[in-house]
Amino acid sequence: MNNTAYEQLTGIWTRLHHFQHLQSIAGWDQAAMMPSKGSTARANAMAEMEGLLHRMRTDPKLAELLRRAAGEDIDPFARANLGEIRREWLSANALPQALVEKLSLAGARCEHAWRAQRPANDWASFLANFREVLKLGREVAQRLADETGLAPYDALMDQYEPGTTSAEVDRVFVDLQQWLPGLVAQVRERQARDAVIDAVGPFPKATQRALSLDVMTLLGFDFDGGRLDESAHPFSGGVPEDTRLTTRYREDDLMQSLMGTIHETGHARYEQNLPRVWLGQPVAQARSMGIHESQSLAFEMQLGRGRAFAGLLAPLLRRHFGDQPAFEPGNLHRLMTRVVPGFVRVDADELTYPAHVILRYGIEKQLIAGSIEADDIPALWDEGMQSLLGIDTRGNYRDGCLQDVHWTHGAFGYFPCYTLGAMYAAQWFAAIRRLHPDLDARIARGDLAPAFDWLREHIWLQGSRWSTAELATRASGETLNPQHLRRHLEARYLG
Amino acid sequence: MNNTAYEQLTGIWTRLHHFQHLQSIAGWDQAAMMPSKGSTARANAMAEMEGLLHRMRTDPKLAELLRRAAGEDIDPFARANLGEIRREWLSANALPQALVEKLSLAGARCEHAWRAQRPANDWASFLANFREVLKLGREVAQRLADETGLAPYDALMDQYEPGTTSAEVDRVFVDLQQWLPGLVAQVRERQARDAVIDAVGPFPKATQRALSLDVMTLLGFDFDGGRLDESAHPFSGGVPEDTRLTTRYREDDLMQSLMGTIHETGHARYEQNLPRVWLGQPVAQARSMGIHESQSLAFEMQLGRGRAFAGLLAPLLRRHFGDQPAFEPGNLHRLMTRVVPGFVRVDADELTYPAHVILRYGIEKQLIAGSIEADDIPALWDEGMQSLLGIDTRGNYRDGCLQDVHWTHGAFGYFPCYTLGAMYAAQWFAAIRRLHPDLDARIARGDLAPAFDWLREHIWLQGSRWSTAELATRASGETLNPQHLRRHLEARYLG
Repeated sequence: MNNTAYEQLTGIWTRLHHFQHLQSIAGWDQAAMMPSKGSTARANAMAEMEGLLHRMRTDPKLAELLRRAAGEDIDPFARANLGEIRREWLSANALPQALVEKLSLAGARCEHAWRAQRPANDWASFLANFREVLKLGREVAQRLADETGLAPYDALMDQYEPGTTSAEVDRVFVDLQQWLPGLVAQVRERQARDAVIDAVGPFPKATQRALSLDVMTLLGFDFDGGRLDESAHPFSGGVPEDTRLTTRYREDDLMQSLMGTIHETGHARYEQNLPRVWLGQPVAQARSMGIHESQSLAFEMQLGRGRAFAGLLAPLLRRHFGDQPAFEPGNLHRLMTRVVPGFVRVDADELTYPAHVILRYGIEKQLIAGSIEADDIPALWDEGMQSLLGIDTRGNYRDGCLQDVHWTHGAFGYFPCYTLGAMYAAQWFAAIRRLHPDLDARIARGDLAPAFDWLREHIWLQGSRWSTAELATRASGETLNPQHLRRHLEARYLG
Repeated sequence: MNNTAYEQLTGIWTRLHHFQHLQSIAGWDQAAMMPSKGSTARANAMAEMEGLLHRMRTDPKLAELLRRAAGEDIDPFARANLGEIRREWLSANALPQALVEKLSLAGARCEHAWRAQRPANDWASFLANFREVLKLGREVAQRLADETGLAPYDALMDQYEPGTTSAEVDRVFVDLQQWLPGLVAQVRERQARDAVIDAVGPFPKATQRALSLDVMTLLGFDFDGGRLDESAHPFSGGVPEDTRLTTRYREDDLMQSLMGTIHETGHARYEQNLPRVWLGQPVAQARSMGIHESQSLAFEMQLGRGRAFAGLLAPLLRRHFGDQPAFEPGNLHRLMTRVVPGFVRVDADELTYPAHVILRYGIEKQLIAGSIEADDIPALWDEGMQSLLGIDTRGNYRDGCLQDVHWTHGAFGYFPCYTLGAMYAAQWFAAIRRLHPDLDARIARGDLAPAFDWLREHIWLQGSRWSTAELATRASGETLNPQHLRRHLEARYLG
C-alpha cells in the first residue's frame, strides 16, 4: 500500500462506519419494528457484528499506524480526526476482552432481572445481582484509569463526556445544589396561585402522530433524511444520513409524546447537520453525550417550553384536537412549566430534573471510589431526595433507587451528562439572545432561524473538531458556566 | 482447534448467517422504510457487507476444510448440509472477482438507465447498455459451465433451480406450448358469456391494509415472526425468524394488493416454517426459487383463486368495504379467474402467465447460446406474443421486451422458475386432493389445515435436505409432471 498511515487509518474507520451503519439500523429495527420471535436471531446477528467491530478496533497493526500517523504532516482537521481515532482506539483497547464479556454478561443478567424486580419493589434480589455489576464496574474504572491517567470515576465519565472531570462537575453541581432547592420552593409557592387547565383526552395515537409530524416539520426535521416511529423507550437512532427517531404515545397524556418528540428532534437535527464532507470519520461525529443532550434540551427546554413557542404550538394542537381551553397559549405555557417535585427522574419537570441528577452523581461517584457499597444506596437515596426535593422514598425502591436502567448494566458516569446538557443549552441560548435581543419576538412570529442557524454554525457543523471546552468557548465565549442555567430558570419561573 | 472440518464449516456458515441477517434486514429497510437521503450511505454499507461475505466464502482455507469434511463420518442430514455448503462455495468461487464487479457495474448502469428508457419506449438507447450486459452474462455462463460441467444456460439456471436442466424445461414447456394457446382461446370464448361485476372504489390504503392483515391471519401467517409493510415492488424478505413481507396498494384496484398479499404470504409461510433446529445452515434454507414460487402460487393460484376460497374472502371484503354486488362469492371467483391476454407479465392472469415465461425462456436461452443477438429480441418478442397470445407488440417496447427488470442486470436463467413453480404448485395440490378428496368442502368451511399441514410436512420442514427431484418424489410420488397444471387449469377454467 502506498497510502500514508493516516490514510490507512481513515480507510479502516470508513469500513467501521459502514458496518456500524448496519448495526445501527438493526438496533433501531429491533426497538421499533421487530416482532418478538425475531429477537434471538437479531441478538446473535448483532453480537456477531459487535465481535467484528471489536476485532477491527483491536487489530494489533493499529498501534503502529497510529504511531506513524502521529508523525505525518496533515492538516488541522485531519489532526483532530486522528485525535478522535486515537480516542476510540484507546477506549476499545483499554479493557481486556474477558472483563468486557464478564460485565456484559453480569449486566445483562442484572438488567433482565431488574425488569421484574422493579415492579415488585424487590431491592434485596436486585442487590444480589448488582453487587457483581458494581464489582466489575469498579474494575473497568480502574483499568480505564490506568490507561488514561484519570481518576477511576473520571475515566468512566470520559467515555461519555471526554475532557470533563468530576472536579468540574463538582464545581458546577455544588453551585446548583445551593440555589436549586430554594428556587424550587419559591416557584412552588408562586405556582400554587396559578390556575392551570389540563387538556382533555383521550388523544388517539394516530392524531398524536400527525401532531408530532407537524411539530417536527416546524422544528426543521428533514423527513428525506429520517423517520418518526414508535418504541417503548424513545430514542434518536439510525445514522446521520438517515436519522431514526422514536416516541411513545399515551392516549391519556398528550404532553408526553409532544415534549418527547421535541426533545428527540433536537438530537436528530444535530445528527442531520453534522459535517457531511467528513462523514464516516470520527471528527464528523457528535462531540459528546453532554453536547448531544444540550441539543435535545435546547429544543425541548429552551425553545419548546418557552412562552413564545407555546403560541406556535397552540394552533397545531387546535388543528389536531379541537379548540380546548387548555390550548390557550398562556395556559399551555403554564402546563409546560408546572413544577411538581416527584419520585421519578424521567417524569421530572425542567426545574426539579437536575436534583435527580445531582443525587445519582453523588452516589455513583462514591460507589466507584469504594467509599460506599451497594447496600448503602437506599439510605443515601432517601437522604438526597429529602434534602433536594423534600420527598420521602423510604421503602419505595420501585420509584426510588430501582427506577433507572443505567446502573443495572454498569453504565456509571453517564448521569452528569443530562444536567451538563441543560447547562450548555442555557449557555447556547444566552449567546443566541446576546446576538438576537428580539429572539422571543421572532420565535413568536414563527421565525426559528436565529436559533437554528446559530446551533448549526456553532455546534452541529463543528462535529468533533474541537474539545468540548474549546467548542463552548468558540461558540459562546466561555467554557461551561452554570450561571446561564440559573438565570434562565429564574427568568422563566420567577420572571 | 479440536473441531472436525465439518464443524468448522458449520461454524463459518453460522457466522455468514448472522451477517446475512443484518444484510437482509437492511435490504428490507431500504425498500420499505428508508428515506431517500439514506440511499448512498445504505448502498455503501451493504456493499461493504457484500465484500465481507464474499471474502468469507472465498477464503482459501475452505477448499481444504471441504476436502477433509468429505471424508468425515457424519449423519445424513449433515451430509446434505455439507452438499449445500459446497454448492454455495462453488457458486461464490466460480467467478473471478473482476468479472463479478464488471457485471455488477454494467448491470447497475443498464438497470438505472432502463428506469427512464422503459417509459420513454427507447429501445435503441437500452440496446447500447444491454449489449455489454449480455456479453458479460455470456462470459459468466461460460465460467459457471466450466466449473460445473453443465451447459452455459443450464449453469445459469442452476443458480436458481439447482438440478433442473434446460432439457427438462424444454420437455415441460414444449408440452405446455402445445395446449396453452388453444385453452386460452376456449376459455376466452366461454368467459365472453359471463357477466362479471367489478368492485367499486376508491379503496383507501388503510382499509386495504386492514383487509390484508385479516387475509394473512386466515392464511396462518405468524405475526410474532414477521410483518407486513409497503414497498414499490412487493417482496417477501427478512429472515426465516422474522419474515418481512411487503405489498403495494392502488386505491382504484382492490385486487392487486389482495392477490399480492396472498402470494407473498405463501413465500413467507415457507420461510416461517423452515426447519428451526438447523437454522443458520444451508440445509435449513428454502430448496430453490422454483419451489419457493410453488408456495406463493399454491397460496395465490391453487388456494386463493379457487371457488371455495372466494367464499372465505367474501365476508372479509364486506367487512372492510361494505356489501357490494362484486363480493358475491361466485362473482368474486369470476373476477379472480378472468382471462385477458395482455402485454405485461406481472399483470397477467393465471392462464396466460405461462405464455409470458415461455417467450422469455426461449429468447434468453438463445441469447446465452449465442444463436441470436440482443438486436434480435424485438422481432422474436413480437413473433412469440403473436403465436402464444395473439398480441401485436410491434413498436411497443415499453410493454414488450423492455418490461422486465431481470435482464437489465444480467439475471438470465431465472424466468423458468415462475412456471416451474406453477407446475409444482398444481402437483402439490393434486397430491393433497388425493389425500383429501373433500378438500374444497373443507376450504369452504374455513378449514385450511389439510393444505397447510401437507405443505408444512412435505415442503417447508424439508428445507434443502433433498434435491428438488427427490423432494418432489417424496412429496408427490413423482418428479415434475406438467399434466397437473393442465388438469388444474382445465378443471378450473372449463369445468
